[in-house]
This record gives sequence, structure tokens and C-alpha cells, in this order.
Amino acid sequence: MYQPQPSDKFTFGLWTVGATGRDPFGEPTRPPLSAPYIVEKLAQLGAYGVNLHDNDLVPIDAGAGERDRIVREFQQTLGDHGLVVPMATTNLFTDPAFKDGAFTSADARVRAYALQKTMRSMDLGHELGAQTYVFWGGREGTEVDASGKLLDSIGWFRDSLNFLAEYSQSQGYGYRFALEPKPNEPRGDIFFPTAGSMLGFIATLDQSELFGVNPEFAHDTMAGLNFTHAVAQIIDAGKLFHVDLNDQKMGRFDQDLRFGAENIKSAFFLVKLLEDSGYDGPRHFDAHALRTEDEVGVWAFARGCMRTYLILKDKARQFDEDPEIQAALQAYRVEDKELSELTRGFTPEKARTLKERAFDRVALGQRGPGLEQLDQLTVELLLGVRGNSVSSEAHA
Amino acid sequence: MYQPQPSDKFTFGLWTVGATGRDPFGEPTRPPLSAPYIVEKLAQLGAYGVNLHDNDLVPIDAGAGERDRIVREFQQTLGDHGLVVPMATTNLFTDPAFKDGAFTSADARVRAYALQKTMRSMDLGHELGAQTYVFWGGREGTEVDASGKLLDSIGWFRDSLNFLAEYSQSQGYGYRFALEPKPNEPRGDIFFPTAGSMLGFIATLDQSELFGVNPEFAHDTMAGLNFTHAVAQIIDAGKLFHVDLNDQKMGRFDQDLRFGAENIKSAFFLVKLLEDSGYDGPRHFDAHALRTEDEVGVWAFARGCMRTYLILKDKARQFDEDPEIQAALQAYRVEDKELSELTRGFTPEKARTLKERAFDRVALGQRGPGLEQLDQLTVELLLGVRGNSVSSEAHA
Amino acid sequence: MYQPQPSDKFTFGLWTVGATGRDPFGEPTRPPLSAPYIVEKLAQLGAYGVNLHDNDLVPIDAGAGERDRIVREFQQTLGDHGLVVPMATTNLFTDPAFKDGAFTSADARVRAYALQKTMRSMDLGHELGAQTYVFWGGREGTEVDASGKLLDSIGWFRDSLNFLAEYSQSQGYGYRFALEPKPNEPRGDIFFPTAGSMLGFIATLDQSELFGVNPEFAHDTMAGLNFTHAVAQIIDAGKLFHVDLNDQKMGRFDQDLRFGAENIKSAFFLVKLLEDSGYDGPRHFDAHALRTEDEVGVWAFARGCMRTYLILKDKARQFDEDPEIQAALQAYRVEDKELSELTRGFTPEKARTLKERAFDRVALGQRGPGLEQLDQLTVELLLGVRGNSVSSEAHA
Amino acid sequence: MYQPQPSDKFTFGLWTVGATGRDPFGEPTRPPLSAPYIVEKLAQLGAYGVNLHDNDLVPIDAGAGERDRIVREFQQTLGDHGLVVPMATTNLFTDPAFKDGAFTSADARVRAYALQKTMRSMDLGHELGAQTYVFWGGREGTEVDASGKLLDSIGWFRDSLNFLAEYSQSQGYGYRFALEPKPNEPRGDIFFPTAGSMLGFIATLDQSELFGVNPEFAHDTMAGLNFTHAVAQIIDAGKLFHVDLNDQKMGRFDQDLRFGAENIKSAFFLVKLLEDSGYDGPRHFDAHALRTEDEVGVWAFARGCMRTYLILKDKARQFDEDPEIQAALQAYRVEDKELSELTRGFTPEKARTLKERAFDRVALGQRGPGLEQLDQLTVELLLGVRGNSVSSEAHA
Repeated sequence: MYQPQPSDKFTFGLWTVGATGRDPFGEPTRPPLSAPYIVEKLAQLGAYGVNLHDNDLVPIDAGAGERDRIVREFQQTLGDHGLVVPMATTNLFTDPAFKDGAFTSADARVRAYALQKTMRSMDLGHELGAQTYVFWGGREGTEVDASGKLLDSIGWFRDSLNFLAEYSQSQGYGYRFALEPKPNEPRGDIFFPTAGSMLGFIATLDQSELFGVNPEFAHDTMAGLNFTHAVAQIIDAGKLFHVDLNDQKMGRFDQDLRFGAENIKSAFFLVKLLEDSGYDGPRHFDAHALRTEDEVGVWAFARGCMRTYLILKDKARQFDEDPEIQAALQAYRVEDKELSELTRGFTPEKARTLKERAFDRVALGQRGPGLEQLDQLTVELLLGVRGNSVSSEAHA
Repeated sequence: MYQPQPSDKFTFGLWTVGATGRDPFGEPTRPPLSAPYIVEKLAQLGAYGVNLHDNDLVPIDAGAGERDRIVREFQQTLGDHGLVVPMATTNLFTDPAFKDGAFTSADARVRAYALQKTMRSMDLGHELGAQTYVFWGGREGTEVDASGKLLDSIGWFRDSLNFLAEYSQSQGYGYRFALEPKPNEPRGDIFFPTAGSMLGFIATLDQSELFGVNPEFAHDTMAGLNFTHAVAQIIDAGKLFHVDLNDQKMGRFDQDLRFGAENIKSAFFLVKLLEDSGYDGPRHFDAHALRTEDEVGVWAFARGCMRTYLILKDKARQFDEDPEIQAALQAYRVEDKELSELTRGFTPEKARTLKERAFDRVALGQRGPGLEQLDQLTVELLLGVRGNSVSSEAHA
Repeated sequence: MYQPQPSDKFTFGLWTVGATGRDPFGEPTRPPLSAPYIVEKLAQLGAYGVNLHDNDLVPIDAGAGERDRIVREFQQTLGDHGLVVPMATTNLFTDPAFKDGAFTSADARVRAYALQKTMRSMDLGHELGAQTYVFWGGREGTEVDASGKLLDSIGWFRDSLNFLAEYSQSQGYGYRFALEPKPNEPRGDIFFPTAGSMLGFIATLDQSELFGVNPEFAHDTMAGLNFTHAVAQIIDAGKLFHVDLNDQKMGRFDQDLRFGAENIKSAFFLVKLLEDSGYDGPRHFDAHALRTEDEVGVWAFARGCMRTYLILKDKARQFDEDPEIQAALQAYRVEDKELSELTRGFTPEKARTLKERAFDRVALGQRGPGLEQLDQLTVELLLGVRGNSVSSEAHA
Repeated sequence: MYQPQPSDKFTFGLWTVGATGRDPFGEPTRPPLSAPYIVEKLAQLGAYGVNLHDNDLVPIDAGAGERDRIVREFQQTLGDHGLVVPMATTNLFTDPAFKDGAFTSADARVRAYALQKTMRSMDLGHELGAQTYVFWGGREGTEVDASGKLLDSIGWFRDSLNFLAEYSQSQGYGYRFALEPKPNEPRGDIFFPTAGSMLGFIATLDQSELFGVNPEFAHDTMAGLNFTHAVAQIIDAGKLFHVDLNDQKMGRFDQDLRFGAENIKSAFFLVKLLEDSGYDGPRHFDAHALRTEDEVGVWAFARGCMRTYLILKDKARQFDEDPEIQAALQAYRVEDKELSELTRGFTPEKARTLKERAFDRVALGQRGPGLEQLDQLTVELLLGVRGNSVSSEAHA
């Protein structure tokens, strides 16, 4: 049970399982793992694919020959192990050139260099078969707002994305672009800090239909926001192009914990929403093993991400089949056909009728929605102590 | 100096200076102030206008006769003191009927009642001359996501706003609607929690041109976000329809502190952005005096909000006239006409040229932008210890 | 199963199940419940006791006769239903007199009145059999540090506690005092904001042995701190005199959610620590039903708090009996008798030996502690999908 | 004006001005600076001293000869430039050996190695003249509480500190130990997360008189706590042995910003408290230049820290001399000699008198403390727009 299959569409970044455990206060605790080795291991664990930044695979200073050799060998490895590269992205944050932003740098040369690097990286992603291209503007932000570049930065960012969308089309790459928000770290404040901000920004782009969001559990959670709510808004807007799964405590540094390691209940609602919504893209784990771990811990981490997702997916099924929970859900909603008719699709007549209607506001305020009970049932289902739980079925 | 004038467009809500100091743990510490008295006092202090929820002025159960009398008398008072009502809004949060949401309640009757109450409140606002209508969905949210209503709620909210926009037009009210986000409190999680989320939501509305944002300093700050960045994004999108000024510490309950009371530097950047952007709407203080205060403290609070704004506006002028700061700003930016040309407005030719261009990424990474110095100069300007400060001028 | 018994020592405050659903933005949604009715209902649900502030039972302006009658009747009810009052406390926050602090007010008369009110409330608690007396200094704090009273306030608070400890002794009450920290709300910043701060403060009291801590899950969690860590420090110091159980998201207003409603994993570690430590005091739920709920929801809430505790207690037993988990725990620790000897209990000889000892720091850094795997096993145990789970046993 | 002097006792860590701009997402942006060069530059800027971790000066694998040579040369440089080393500390966080804790590692060998490394570092600190020894337990914490080591860890930490205190005495070093709390980062949760927690822990140490706190502005601020309140509690307890000055936004990663760069008002209250309290130890800036900066920016940063401190110190003087502010302060306090007498120093007689005393609680609740006005005056003083401001004096 809970054995991941490629059809589950679980993906990892090369930079995630490959993370060496370096942090602001410490040196790496694990040796780097080669890209082919990561592919081999992930395939064994049942993953579907692997994602990458350009420089996860190709060193920033590699010549054309070296680059092509690396790509060829990597394609070979992917084929050997049946893994795909559904998503690619650009590293616009490691190199000191981007220390004050890439597309939003106050230095026109840096902005141009960022554009060049991204086009080249889009070429690479296309060669590897990627159909989604992610932008995480890790350095696009400020610590010093005295610089006065806020409005210019938004404009520069937009110009860059408009340019790159046309580049994708002119090359026939057919990318869908997924913008990934984050509130802060490494910059004091990053532009477009939340999933909602990205939706707002997308509406201002020339070809906004090509752009969607790549929300990350940890990122909105850093700002104390409800990630499932954020994903619901994105789904409502038709903009869920990719999703980054991990975990995080609110109000602190970017932890990138194993999926489900911290907020079990939130992870459940997220999985339920993704499954119910018909989202069929990759479930990408943008997380890394704790710095305390050796390589054994890295694979335990990767297995754990996928197992927890599958367990929660099974809990979602149980939730839908639990008669007491379903009865509580039904009791929670009050439908009224006549009123629903009146409140949707304005006409002056409807407005007049509605304005004259008598409502018993006191009675409306007294109704008990049963939410404490529903929530308790959900917690008990998660804890596996309700009758129709998996374990009990498994033993039936 | 720093004496507010109506031309400064400072406004307060009846509910702000009228707050009685009740909080979750304590009873009111001040008696209520009548609406006419508030108008009289605000006029004396130099305010431009006063804003209101329907029930700030008219009790929720008032009959038509009582309502009309109250409105007439209030109009008279406004006229007597030369104050306007630029903005109106609906109280959809105090009455228990709205305990689980208004437009997003799971009870169709509550949603209909909310629509009715809003239409009536829009009538009231129009009578008083309001041109901006604010929606703060204080109860639109959840604590129990097991309720499974997230996607429905977004739809219900949208239906309601689409309906009300048409109502405004059919009545000839000509309202511009300003949506006000808040991350949480009183609900565990409020829908559309940040300024960016509202921009994203607006893009999905039928007549999105009628809808803008009413960002509030304290609200985005509660989520640890940079409020000036949020306002910049709203300005970029042409959606700054109103603004709520106050103050707040990050990551805690809604404090609604006196403007500039906590984050002096952020308040400065905000004032500078508003003034530079040409925003000419009201500067609305959605704050209240500390619960410790008596009525004397209330007016000290109101005066302080306005004075601090004017002081910071004057600092913004000094900033623009400070040669050392302006030199630092100029040094910070590197323009490059050729590159700017190449990176804006895609053509395949530009892309090709740009991809082949050689960049010295090491040199780009070594350049010092002078941001620490610029920031220190700004802090010293704020502290009034630079040569061209107001005080020195005042003594010249 | 999971049916609470008085021997489980679950207690509730009159103010918790009795909360009427008022919040900063809304009126009460539920009618008040009488103290005797609450006692009756809690007894039916299997609770052990009920706690109270003076004014939860006796109105602030009650005369001596009314007060005595209320107390007599309440004692009768307690006896009838077999409930005890293990803890009492003072309401020093609702009345406007305490708006700027009680023991730390800048007004000497308020400080004196607070002392009087507390002595009287200690008399009441003693009459009802309380052995623990809690101090939650909800109003002891500031918004305006310009007031310059920080150091004085600490002194006034200490004087008051020293006085009250002697009062307890001179009256023969034998109270143990439990100080309850909270970081903020209703004050901008509350003095002694965390469990640790209270431990630090206790060390400065005259009879520090009479004082311990009453940590509350939600309060340290508001500050983003790990509550289980806080309780461990308190236990280590021998100062766990009482405990307040509830739930909360980090970095936001005081939510007082149903125990286990949000942070399932943290709640588990807390229950495990309490049970393992031999703590045998009350398990007090300082929470309240959501404002959306009617009275049915209130009792669902109360039942849920107790059930979740018992479920997690059973999970703690499973954890201790799970061979794979126990093996992981054993592998995690490296004991070394010789080194343990050398590092405990200083002698110059030990220091010399230790300083000359050769350590292979590289090898030490390479060891894998197996924490990802241990954590994943814990999550799966919580989710009820491990073999030795309760449900499977129940069906065996 | 505002020119730092050695008598101001400003210190920097070698690791602060020497920070190379590496962060979790990026490579260094600045070359390392040698220790002697740092000393030379700091002396030019007017600093008093420089602090260090063992490995800031001596590489972790240096042999005895290399170590002695480095120390000799450094002493020479210090002497040449008139700088002192008032504080030393141990790096127990960079090396992978400490990845899961040093004194609190679950591996007895790591704990022993940490003790050895600290003794050697204490030897080094003593050689350089340090009188304060700081412990920042950056890795002492957990991400996985399933490890069950919380209570053991506290014990191991205590054993280590008790051991090291005796080592200091037996060697005649005469150190005062200053414990530095931090809530999280790099660990998910660090033990003893706040200044208060450290005070609580110190009370459990064998020779607690040798131990005090080294509070850091950014660290308590990360947890959303009021740093000035924390320092007041430390001063009250007689435990302010050292202080780390910098700046930070609440609820996010460790920013270590230039002192006064973010929270101008909090920085002012802190400076005022330090100056008023008679604290005469070093003012240590544990901050670093933004990663965007080159070396020019590093020295701008260092100069800015000191200048802002001096400006705020001067503001504190102005505050004390401002008649309107002083009048507001006096009006804020209500003294009552008789009541003060009654409430301090318990006697049964006093208790009886106090219990029978009549208080007019309604009147007490109505008094206006004038805090909004006091706070506004403070803000205007900080902004330099009050008459007796520095600039005006400078022009007198």
C-alpha cells in the first residue's frame, strides 16, 4: 500500500534530493549527488519525473561542447530509467551578478544578462522535453526601499516576461509559464509575495493566457496564509499550472520540510482539493532532507513525501465515503432555489424583489452549522480512529 | 506647520474616532460619540471627510422614518461643517447572521440578506454623496476547511459583486468599488487575504474596470508583507481606488495603531509613493485611539495621524531635494540604451543578438550599489539630523 | 473508547464553554450559560472539574449577601455532580479600571485595587477548594514604551506577588501560584511574554518555591515558539504547576481553538511529554467553541478536546510499543560511558584528559541520525496506518 | 557630531564586517577580509573593540604552531590600533559534526568534542583579554521532536555549562558567561528560544551568579517580541552581561540588519534604556552589510550602526529635557503614598486595611493617561521636528 507509481506524477527537483545540507551557519553535511544517480534512485522509488534549473545540470561556465555532452548523457539516463522532465527553470539567484535582482535589477546590463540566461535555459528545458517553465524571482526584491525602484521593477519584470513568452512562441516551444511567489528570503521583501499577488500580476501581462502560478506550500505559509485557500483561488482563476509541495512553520525562515511533516491537517485539505479539482499536472516536492541527514535520510525523505501524499489521498476517499461526515456536510449547507435565482444574474426586477424581501436575521444568526463536530470528525478520520479507516478495512 | 487642511483630503471613519475601546477581553472604556459630534470635531481638526458603514449611522432595525430623519440631520451637519462623505461601506460582520460569512455563507438565505443589506447601504451612501464603495469581507472566511466550500465561496462572492456592480449602474450611482483584503481576524483565514489576492480576484469579475483595491497598512503588515510594495503593485495595475492608513506590528492581532506610530520608515516610503504617484483620493485613517485613552486621547490620536502624514510628506520633499541622496540614487542605476532597446519589445532578431552578447558576469557581481549608504542617509533624514532638514530651514 | 473519566483530570473554565461568541467585530452569537448548568453538562461529559475567575461566578458589584448565596448554591451544584474546582484566578482585565494594567498600572490606586480584588478572589477560590491560583496578567503591558515604566512595572508586579504569597500563607490557604505568560493581545506587548520569561521572573521572587508556570499552548504558539519545548523547560525546572490546552496558528490573534484542531503533531508531542513526565495535575482546556456555533457546537467542542487528548495518549502508548520506532530511537543515540564520565562533574584532571583527547570530527559529521525516517514513522503512526495501530487492534 | 569614540564602547565581530555575503541561495559576493585588516579599519572608524569565535581567527584544523603565530600577530595588530577583544565565543555550528547539536547532541562523542573545543576557545579568548564569554547555541535544537531528547538535552546543556564555569575558575580566567537566545534558524526550534527562557535556565545552574544573558535585538524580534521589554527584564534580574545590536523584521529569517535600519522607534527605546540603566559594557553590533554591497558598503554599514546609536542617544537626552514630554510623563503617573505603603511589604494588618478600602473603580477606569499624545510627541522628537531638537540647537 501507498507505493508510489509513475502514474501518481510525483516529481522532485535535482536541487532537492541533491541538496548538500549547506545553510547560512554551516558547511555542507552531504556530498553532492550526480544528476544521473538521482534519476536512477528516483526511478527506483516510483517517481514520475525530475525538474531542474539550468545550472543544476550544466555548470554556469560550461562551453557549448561540454553542455551538449552533459545534456546527451542526461537524456540517455532519463530514457534508461523512464523518467521525464516536465518542468524547467532558470537559476537567477546563485550568481553574485543577480545579488540585487535579475529582471528587476537597477543595472540594465544585469537585466539583459538575465534575459539571455533565461532564453538559453528555455532552450535546454525544451531539449529535455519540459512543457512548463517556472519563474521563481528569488532575488527580485529589496531591502532598501529608498532605492525608489518599485514601480520601475514591476515594469521591467513585465517587459521580461512578455519578451520571453514571445520567445517561446517564436521558437515553437509551447511553454506554459508558472510564476512562483515567495514573501521573503533571500531578499528582505520579494516582489509579488503571495500566490494572489502573482494572479494580480498575470492579469497585466500581454499574453496572460500563457501564464499561471506555481504556488508553494512553504511560501504562502511563511506569511501565515492558508495555502489551501490560495490554491483554491488559483484553481478558480484557471491558473494552476504547477504546484510545489513541502512543509513549513509559519512566520520563520524557509524550511522546505518533508511534505506533511508539520501541518498534517493542511496537507490533507490540499491533497483533497488537488484531487477533487481534477488537477493532473505533476505533484512536485520542492523540499529537501534535514541537514542532519546522510544519504540514507535523503531517500527516506523522498519516500516519505510520496507515501504521505498517498495516505492523505486515501483519507480523502474515506472522507467522501464517511456517512457521518457527509451528513454533517449536507446539514451545513442551506440551499434555497428561489433566493439563489434572485441573487444571481442581475435584473432591476430581481433587485427590487430582493430589497423588499423580509429576512429573519435573528433566526439566521441562531442556526448552528455543526462545524466543531465536523472538524472533530475530520481530525479523528486523520488519526485513523474512525470505523471506516484504512487500517480497519485492511484487516477486514 | 503641519496643520491639516481639507485640501489634504484626510478622512476618518465614524467607527474609528468613535471606537469605544471594547476588546475581546474588556468592556468599553469610552462612551460612544454621536455622528454629528464627530463631524463637528473632525472639521475643527482640519479633516476633509468622514466615512461610514450603514449601521455606524442608522441602527440595523431602524424603520424607514427614523432612517430618513437620521440621514437628513446628518446631511445638515455635514453641510454645516463642510465635511464630505467620500466613501461608504456595509457592516456585514457585527450581526450574528453573518457569523459564518455574508456573501460566502453556506446558507443561501444569509447570502441573499447580505445582498439586500448592501443594496440598501449603497442607497444610503449615494444619498450622502459617496463615490467610492468599499467591501471588507471581514467574515468571508473559514476556520474549518472540512466544510469544503472554498471554491463555491469564491463563486458566490463573485456573483454578489457582479450583481452589485450592475445595481450601481442601473441606479445611476456611478460607484467605484474598492475591495479591502485582510489575512485573518475575526475569521481564522479570510478569503483574498492580501492586496495581491484582491487584484487577482478583480481580474475574474465581469466589469473588472469598476473594481479596485482599498489596501490597509495594518492588514498586509499582519501577514509580514511590505505594504509599500503592495501599494506599488496596485498603482501599477491602475487599481488604487482608496487607501486605509494606520499602523501595526507584524504577525499579531489587528492593532489599528495611529498612523506612523510603529513603522516610521515604512510610513515614510508609503507617503512618498502616494505623493509621487499622483494619487488624489482620500487619505483615510482606519485606526482608533488606544483603549487606555479617554476622549482627549481620541483627538490627540486623530491630530497625530494627520500631523505625521504631513511631516512625512515634507520629508519626502526633502529627500527629493537632498543632493547627496539624489547622487546616491543616480549612482545606483546603470542605464544602457542599447540593452534597454534590445530587451523591450520582442523580435527574433533582438533575441538572437541578445543570446550572443557577451556579459562579464563577474564584474556585474562586483559592483557596489551603495544601498547601505543610501539607507543610512534616509534614516538620518527621517531623524532630522541632515543639513537640509525642516528644523534647520525653520531656523534659517 | 476515548470516553473521558474524572480520573483523566480534564477541566474547563466557566469562561470557556460559557463563552458567548463575542469578538472585536461582532456581537455574541450564543446566550450565556449559567454556572450550575455548565457544571451539570461537564459532569455528564466526564470532566473532572471546573475553573473560574472571580467574576465568572460572582458579579463585580455583588454585595456580600448575594455573593455568599451564589457561592453556596455553586458549592451545592458541584457536590451534586461530583465536580471540583482545582484552580481559581482573578479577572483583572475586563473592567476599564485595569485598561492600562493592574499590578503594573502607573496609577497607584489601580495597583492597590488589583491587590484587593485578588485577595478577595483568593478567599473565594479557597472556599471552593482551589489549590492552584493562576495569574494571567492580560493587561500588564504597554503599547507606548515612551511611558518609561518598564523597570518600575517589573518591580510593582514582583511586590504584588510577594505580598499575595504571604497573604496566602497568613490565611492558611496553601495555594501554589501558577503564572501564565502571553506575548500580546489585548496589550500591544505583555510583560513576561513567554513561558521562559515567567521562569526567569519567578527566580526573582521572595518565595519562589510557591510559584510555578501555567503555560498555554496558544500563547507560546502565537510567538511562533515550540510549546512542547517550553513545557519541557518548565518540567526541568520543577515548575509545571498547571497547564492550559488549546490550539492556535502561529503569528496571529489569540484563537483558543479546540485542542488538537490545528497542530496535530505538536499536540501529540505535548501529550506524550505530559504523560511521560508524571505530571498529575489538571488537563485544563482554555479554549472555546468557534463563534459560528450554537450550544450543540459548544458541547461537541468540549467532547472533542477530551477525545483528542485520549486518542493522542493512546498514540503515545503505541509509539512506546512500536518496535521499529523504538529501534530508530535507540540507533539515534550514541552513548559512551567513558566520555559521559569525563564530561560530567568537573575536575582539572578531567578537563586535561578531555582537552587532549583526539576526536574524528569528520566522522562525527557524517553519521546519519535517521531523523527523517523516525519522523515519517511518527506521522504514519499518527495517521493510524501502522500495523500496531488502535484500529487494527480493535479489529483483531 | 555623532563621531564614534572608543569611549562609546562600540564593538563588532570579525564575522560581521567580515561576512562575505553568502546566503542559502547564493554564493559570496565579497572576498573575505583578513582579521588584521578588519582591526585596522574598525580602529579608523572609532570602534572600541572586536569580538570573535575561535575559528574566525584560527582555522579549525590549525596546528599548535600556526595557532600561536596567528594569535601573536593578532595581538600585535590589536595593540598597534588600540582595539580590545572584550568578548569571545565558540563556533559550534559551522562544522558538520555539530549538525544535530553540540552540547545537546544525542551523540556523546559530539558533546565531548564540543566541550573540548570550548575549553580551547576559552583559552584563546583569555589570551586575547576577553572577560565575557558568549554561548550562542545555534545548533542546540530540533526539527524532529520524536527523537525524545528534550529533557535530556536540557540536562546535557546544564552539565556542560556547569563544567565550563568550573573550568574558567580553575584556570583563573574570571569569565562572565553570557547566554544568547534565538528562537529558530538554523534549527527548526532552538532550545531556550527567548531572553526570558535564558533567565529561567540560568536559575537552574550551579553557579548562576557567573551567568547572564547576551540578548540580541534581531533574535527576540524574530519571535515578534518587544526587545526593549526583554532587556528590561534582564536588567531587573541583574543579568545584562552583554548586548547584540542589529535590526530585523518580525516573523522572518534572521536578517541582521544595520542597527536602526528598520525599527527606529524600538531602537530609540532600547538605547534610552541602556543609557539610563548605567549599562557600561560593550555595544556590540552583531549585524552585517547587505549581500548587495561591496567593501565600501561594509564600512558604510559599520559607520551607520555607530552613528545611529549616537543620534538616538542624543535623542534620549532631548527626551529627558523636553518640558512638554516630561509634563506628560508626570501626568501619566499617579502616586499615592498611603497606598504604596499598604501594598508593599505584607502584614496581616495591611491586608485587612486594604481589603476593606473603598475604591471608585468607575472613576479609575475613566482617567485619561495621555498616552496617544505622549507617543505622538515622541514620534515628532524622533523625526526632529520639535523645537528643542538637535538641528535647531546646532543652528542656535
